[in-house]
Amino acid sequence: MSHQNLDHLRDRVDELNLEILRLINERAEVVQEIGKIKEKQGVNRYDPLRERHMLNLLKEHHDGPLSQGTVEHIFKEIFKSALKLQETDHKKELLV
Amino acid sequence: MSHQNLDHLRDRVDELNLEILRLINERAEVVQEIGKIKEKQGVNRYDPLRERHMLNLLKEHHDGPLSQGTVEHIFKEIFKSALKLQETDHKKELLV
Repeated sequence: MSHQNLDHLRDRVDELNLEILRLINERAEVVQEIGKIKEKQGVNRYDPLRERHMLNLLKEHHDGPLSQGTVEHIFKEIFKSALKLQETDHKKELLV
Repeated sequence: MSHQNLDHLRDRVDELNLEILRLINERAEVVQEIGKIKEKQGVNRYDPLRERHMLNLLKEHHDGPLSQGTVEHIFKEIFKSALKLQETDHKKELLV
C-alpha cells in the first residue's frame, strides 16, 4: 500500500515539476516582451523597485510550508534567469 | 500604448509568480508526504537516482526560452528547498 502511495505521490511531483517548468518558461517569455518595450523606451531593464514589489506580493500571498526565505531565494533565481535571457537578446540585437 | 502594454505584461508576470508560488508550495507538501512514508520504511530521504529521473523528464519536456542549464539550476534549488523542509520535519520528530 505504501509503495502504491509512494508511486502516486511521485507521479504528482512529476506533474507539478512540468507545470512549474511551463510557467517559468511562460514567465521568461513575458519578461522578454517587457524587455523589448523598455529597450524601445531606452529604459534600464533591471528594476530593483519592481523586483521589491514582486517579492512583497509573494510575501503577502505565501503561507507555507516553504519558509519565506526559501521562497525569496527561489524567486531571485527565477528573476535572475529571465534577466540573463534579456541580456542575451540585447547582445543579439547589438550583433545584427 | 506602450505603457498600457507594459502594465498588462507586468500584471501577467505577477499572476505567473503567484501560480509558481502555489505550485512550489504544493510540491513541497507532496515531498513532505513522501518523506513521511520513507521515514516509516527506514529509507534515506535523499535519492539521487530519483533526482536524475526528474531532471531527465524536465529535459524531455523543455523547449525554452530558458536554457536547459538555467532550468536545471532553478529546479535544483527547488529540490533542495523541499529536502531542507524534510530535514526540519525529521528534527522536529526527534525532539518530541
